[in-house]
Amino acid sequence: MKTINIGLIGFGTIGVGVVKNLQRNGALISQRIGAHLHIKGIADINIKGNRGVEVDRKILTTDASKLINDPDIDIIIELIGGYEPAKAFILKALKNGKHVVTANKALLALHGEEIFQAARDAKRSVCFEASVGGGIPIIKALREGFVGNRTNSIFGIVNGTSNYILTKMTREKVSFAAALKEAQARGYAEKDPTFDVEGIDSAHKLVILASLASGQWIDFKSLLIEGITKVTDRDIEYAEELGCVVKLLAIMKEKNGLIEARVHPTLISKDNLLATINGVYNAICVEGDVVGKTMFSGRGAGQDPTSSAVISDLVDIALDITHHASNRVPSFAALSEKKKLKKMDDVESRAYLRVSASDRPGVLAKIAGILGKHQISIATVLQKEHDEKGGTVPVVMLTHKATEKHLREALQEIDRMREIKHKTVMIRMED
Amino acid sequence: MKTINIGLIGFGTIGVGVVKNLQRNGALISQRIGAHLHIKGIADINIKGNRGVEVDRKILTTDASKLINDPDIDIIIELIGGYEPAKAFILKALKNGKHVVTANKALLALHGEEIFQAARDAKRSVCFEASVGGGIPIIKALREGFVGNRTNSIFGIVNGTSNYILTKMTREKVSFAAALKEAQARGYAEKDPTFDVEGIDSAHKLVILASLASGQWIDFKSLLIEGITKVTDRDIEYAEELGCVVKLLAIMKEKNGLIEARVHPTLISKDNLLATINGVYNAICVEGDVVGKTMFSGRGAGQDPTSSAVISDLVDIALDITHHASNRVPSFAALSEKKKLKKMDDVESRAYLRVSASDRPGVLAKIAGILGKHQISIATVLQKEHDEKGGTVPVVMLTHKATEKHLREALQEIDRMREIKHKTVMIRMED
Repeated sequence: MKTINIGLIGFGTIGVGVVKNLQRNGALISQRIGAHLHIKGIADINIKGNRGVEVDRKILTTDASKLINDPDIDIIIELIGGYEPAKAFILKALKNGKHVVTANKALLALHGEEIFQAARDAKRSVCFEASVGGGIPIIKALREGFVGNRTNSIFGIVNGTSNYILTKMTREKVSFAAALKEAQARGYAEKDPTFDVEGIDSAHKLVILASLASGQWIDFKSLLIEGITKVTDRDIEYAEELGCVVKLLAIMKEKNGLIEARVHPTLISKDNLLATINGVYNAICVEGDVVGKTMFSGRGAGQDPTSSAVISDLVDIALDITHHASNRVPSFAALSEKKKLKKMDDVESRAYLRVSASDRPGVLAKIAGILGKHQISIATVLQKEHDEKGGTVPVVMLTHKATEKHLREALQEIDRMREIKHKTVMIRMED
Repeated sequence: MKTINIGLIGFGTIGVGVVKNLQRNGALISQRIGAHLHIKGIADINIKGNRGVEVDRKILTTDASKLINDPDIDIIIELIGGYEPAKAFILKALKNGKHVVTANKALLALHGEEIFQAARDAKRSVCFEASVGGGIPIIKALREGFVGNRTNSIFGIVNGTSNYILTKMTREKVSFAAALKEAQARGYAEKDPTFDVEGIDSAHKLVILASLASGQWIDFKSLLIEGITKVTDRDIEYAEELGCVVKLLAIMKEKNGLIEARVHPTLISKDNLLATINGVYNAICVEGDVVGKTMFSGRGAGQDPTSSAVISDLVDIALDITHHASNRVPSFAALSEKKKLKKMDDVESRAYLRVSASDRPGVLAKIAGILGKHQISIATVLQKEHDEKGGTVPVVMLTHKATEKHLREALQEIDRMREIKHKTVMIRMED
């Protein structure tokens, strides 16, 4: 049985998971694939201490280049995260003829094009199943399972931290700050939660999914990104009264050669399958032009789910090696047909608006007038009777579909009314 | 660009879908995989009439062996269904060095072991993504995405017809017969719906999933199979009062080297993700020992979803051919570790019981006594006040976990009580 030698760079939570689960199920995997996956070396800046998994200390090193330059190593797993030195390691490994497995969504989202070009040039694979959706085999599904499809849309809950916080806010009617604190206490959010709660992590993952689906690399800087830090428990409560929940969604749509890609808190109906995905779970809905609507869900992060994905990538590469079929499925297949990104101004969505107005007659009519002027029609109004602090009443509305441009312009005009006491809250809505 | 020649046997709904969708997205697929999928011949017993797709009539034949014996053909797609001549066609095609794509779950469930042995001997692939879950890439997920996992359990809604009927019964409070009639009118159920509503189709699919997951071929005859024909709208209503819905589930569990596999109507909590899968949609929950709980959903049948799956199989084989990597992922990898099938007597589940008893004092105590004697403890009782026809009242109970043996014995004893007017209804429950 052929042995596939692996060099692991980054011996943190996920790296330990890979080693642990290869120990656990290695014999089973060998039987399934007719090859043996062998961790030949592990590099980390810190190789002291007990990680809860037994490894021969002789294979540990603080020098990653030892693995990258080892001619016996077939695959490098990059699990250190961040941009550098991760990128340099990956490019050097490819240059040295090694395949690469990575979970580094931030790196791929910003430098994917360059990395996949290097992989193509080296005729090697860069596999990244673990970069999106934890153990959910969504990359394989998009690239192989749906190879016969054009992707019409992707709607994803791809950040477990944000989903945990929103779930907690919904269930326990607590504030964002309180829910975040709890998430941090449970280890679901980092000390600095910016990447997760500001939507940046979701946007990284969306770039990867949208690029794969559309066959052209989507520029991270072109995305609209809004996080959940401004979502209040009150808006979640009103959403509930309207039969909706609030989720942080990564959205990609393609129609008539125009692509839109955005990340923002989104109202969705309680009947939407994504509304049932709670806590740290992730889910990704893909609509293909042939297959129709599909959904994939599972734990989106954590040692075990993520290492399940890393191992599936190792196996794919191992099978390519044993069958001399390098790069059998290209890591990223660029398509010749170039699509344009839709201008954010032109993106259409429904919207939830919460206007804080003085309780005077005629205010609602004035607001409705402004919306109408900007071609925004109102689907539902929820006027709350109770007074808020400061003598304002919240007017909650769901609009029909409108463009971003019109919504923004209308909101500016509304917020200039002297009856308006606070900036109007807008949360986009998807059906 | 290499051309992969395909012979299609069976030009019905799915076959037409494959041709139509290859016409639609063929150029896109070629770009993605660097090969051209070409339908070289189509065989059907009826090659007259318009199928809504344009094909060169010269490639049509009524003689399947012309395709099977054509040395230029690389892949045979078998879409005629049934046992013979489908099986003979597949075996002959393999013998002739061709790869095979099939959607024939009945054939695989009963003769899979023989067919996969023939594939191994011929060093060719038999791909069957379309046999379970329509366009959901569940076979690929089980075999490749979760290659690093042992599968602890599978819970699947894998028959769209039954799910449509149960959904309709739940939403509209109509009888099984009325819902079936509607399903037939809409083309979701066949004139003879036996395979679908008696759980046989689900059992075929379960054999395929459970065999793949466990690495040994599961004997179809060993399965417990119960359909939905005896589920009444009244039981669905009581289930609802208990916070549950009724779904036809295909269930596989593996623990300590013991496998259980069964198909039956099942009470599940409304909070269970599977409870949200309605209409003709299918969903499969897979729990792996590494990845944890995952779910996949989508349309489980129909021309387009199924042809999406067939096309993904064609692509997998095409890539194997262009990379000279035949059988890169074995169609079915048998594992050496042999597991036993759990005796049905020993299978444990919770149960919903509906007892129809005369409205006399002491009846409930007597029933509870019998259950207790058989080590079955009651979790919830729902005693309905209104009298039924015949002077009986229904007593509805949820039990805690009990073995099939104990449940059956207790039910026999209960049904022998002279206060019991009708056979007690039992529906198993899963958490």
